Amino acid sequence: MTIAENITNPSSLPPLDAKTQVHQFMLGLQDEICQALGQLEETAQFREDSWTREEGGGGRSRVIKNGEIFEQGGVNFSQVWGDRLPPSILQQRPEAAGHSFYATGTSMVLHPRSPYIPTVHLNYRYFEAGPVWWFGGGADLTPYYAFYEDAAHFHKTLKAACDGHCPEYYPVFKPWCDEYFYLKHRQEARGIGGIFFDYQDGKSPLYRGNQEDSPAKGLDLPDASRSWQDVFSFVQSCGRAFLPAYLPIVERRKSIEYGQRERDFQLYRRGRYVEFNLVYDRGTIFGLQTNGRTESILMSLPPLVRWEYGYQPEPGTPESELYEVFLKPQDWVGWSANK
Amino acid sequence: MTIAENITNPSSLPPLDAKTQVHQFMLGLQDEICQALGQLEETAQFREDSWTREEGGGGRSRVIKNGEIFEQGGVNFSQVWGDRLPPSILQQRPEAAGHSFYATGTSMVLHPRSPYIPTVHLNYRYFEAGPVWWFGGGADLTPYYAFYEDAAHFHKTLKAACDGHCPEYYPVFKPWCDEYFYLKHRQEARGIGGIFFDYQDGKSPLYRGNQEDSPAKGLDLPDASRSWQDVFSFVQSCGRAFLPAYLPIVERRKSIEYGQRERDFQLYRRGRYVEFNLVYDRGTIFGLQTNGRTESILMSLPPLVRWEYGYQPEPGTPESELYEVFLKPQDWVGWSANK
Repeated sequence: MTIAENITNPSSLPPLDAKTQVHQFMLGLQDEICQALGQLEETAQFREDSWTREEGGGGRSRVIKNGEIFEQGGVNFSQVWGDRLPPSILQQRPEAAGHSFYATGTSMVLHPRSPYIPTVHLNYRYFEAGPVWWFGGGADLTPYYAFYEDAAHFHKTLKAACDGHCPEYYPVFKPWCDEYFYLKHRQEARGIGGIFFDYQDGKSPLYRGNQEDSPAKGLDLPDASRSWQDVFSFVQSCGRAFLPAYLPIVERRKSIEYGQRERDFQLYRRGRYVEFNLVYDRGTIFGLQTNGRTESILMSLPPLVRWEYGYQPEPGTPESELYEVFLKPQDWVGWSANK
Repeated sequence: MTIAENITNPSSLPPLDAKTQVHQFMLGLQDEICQALGQLEETAQFREDSWTREEGGGGRSRVIKNGEIFEQGGVNFSQVWGDRLPPSILQQRPEAAGHSFYATGTSMVLHPRSPYIPTVHLNYRYFEAGPVWWFGGGADLTPYYAFYEDAAHFHKTLKAACDGHCPEYYPVFKPWCDEYFYLKHRQEARGIGGIFFDYQDGKSPLYRGNQEDSPAKGLDLPDASRSWQDVFSFVQSCGRAFLPAYLPIVERRKSIEYGQRERDFQLYRRGRYVEFNLVYDRGTIFGLQTNGRTESILMSLPPLVRWEYGYQPEPGTPESELYEVFLKPQDWVGWSANK
């Protein structure tokens, strides 16, 4: 079965209340995450800003500043619609050309104060445009002083969420995440990854849009034959896996003391987060260039960042181990404390 | 006379030793700047890194860290050649297609420690490719706590350098600078500008490459009829105008005391410099995406930067004056202390 045949397969039609179902889930996910994270803080709390978009839709941004655990972070919900998708998306989903669109999603970036707690990112989104619909998103972790068991725990939790729906998901979405969150100009991964996917419409998890470098380009894709409800249910499981994937890491690391050296290294490494988001991240660049809400888009940037010409970690240090081990793709699920 | 006729005008051919003349000037400019700036510092000095480029050429980076005046900054010389120019340049200069190229230039960014001394950027460059050659570059100032007389002094000095060669230069290159160093997503100028130009081959200062939005698109351009030597001589004057344009500002402001409020605002505003360089700057993005020397390219980023969600300056403060007055295009040359 070819890609084109897959897409017009009527068995994958969304239900009439698809948009309502998804946007209510996305709002609920934002609530659930903010509530759980807020419980970790003594004084600082999420502040809410609601906004509307002239062309249609709007959002609900929730931002935390100067927390004991989270130095800065935000969890955004948005729901937008319009006459046409931007060219960058139409190029990947040509079937959506000439149709109006609807998109909703929740996205989050948290920058913890402690260099022992990793920065974390989550985004889940849903699109409808004429004959096509798809889900995208994922979650990934960016440690500074990294722990093997944290990396393994994060990946195992996400893998379990994937495996409950389709055994092909994690083996495809884990390397996709490594590939996407990669800084070419540094030849470094952004962190230890997680899962990332896009264009999921129930056909094949291998389909990556109309990209030249897609592994599915020109292939007959394995038909995963999942309904809209199956895929939505998978995305819900991924979203709900975030707290159990991340909170135990925060609990384990939040009391570790650190000094100026660790803080300096954290601020330096945060520079890579800025470089990735401003140079490569599709969502960020698209938002900035097309009249998005700048403050909500750049909520992903860290509160304090350092750049230093020619920095190199000293061999044999924890800083060097980050580069040598954690910033290269690894089989974290296969990692064991006994190895 | 049309653009195409201009370009094939043989009277504008470069001399046989053009590359030698220009690269020696560029090296000398780097020397001159580093020597003068070094004299402002008690202990910190420029550290030199020479590097070669696999595809042809190399450079000499000079970086200063932790100075009393300059918290971080770099002055780079480079000279590169290769089989073909990148598509982004060929699109602007289609005549260079199918030809090998040579490019040399000096570029500089300085991030002073004091919020009363503006960040400054300079870049001058020269290209040859088959039948075409051109100069580009400019200098611009980014203040934090800004002074009218500093803005006027900087612009008057650059205007004088321009006027000595062609009365059309400053009136064209000043607004071009305002237009180029503009953050669309913030609807803010990067600073108070200066001059900026590209594709200068002695024909018309209005020619801005093959851009859709060029003011010269489809026009018969005024023929400036300047030889290669005329244009090179103009670029030399611009380069040599940098120290007299900037040093008096440093001298006037270096002893002003400041506190945490001013420092916080400076770190916050430095975020805009990062956003501009990573999202919009052609040279930075091109360099990062095409295997340039990352450390030299990102030498332009500030040593310490802050992002804060939803910051707004309080009305009636100096921070608010920066936004209201200095970050909008102004006729700085026409400014007078008596107004």
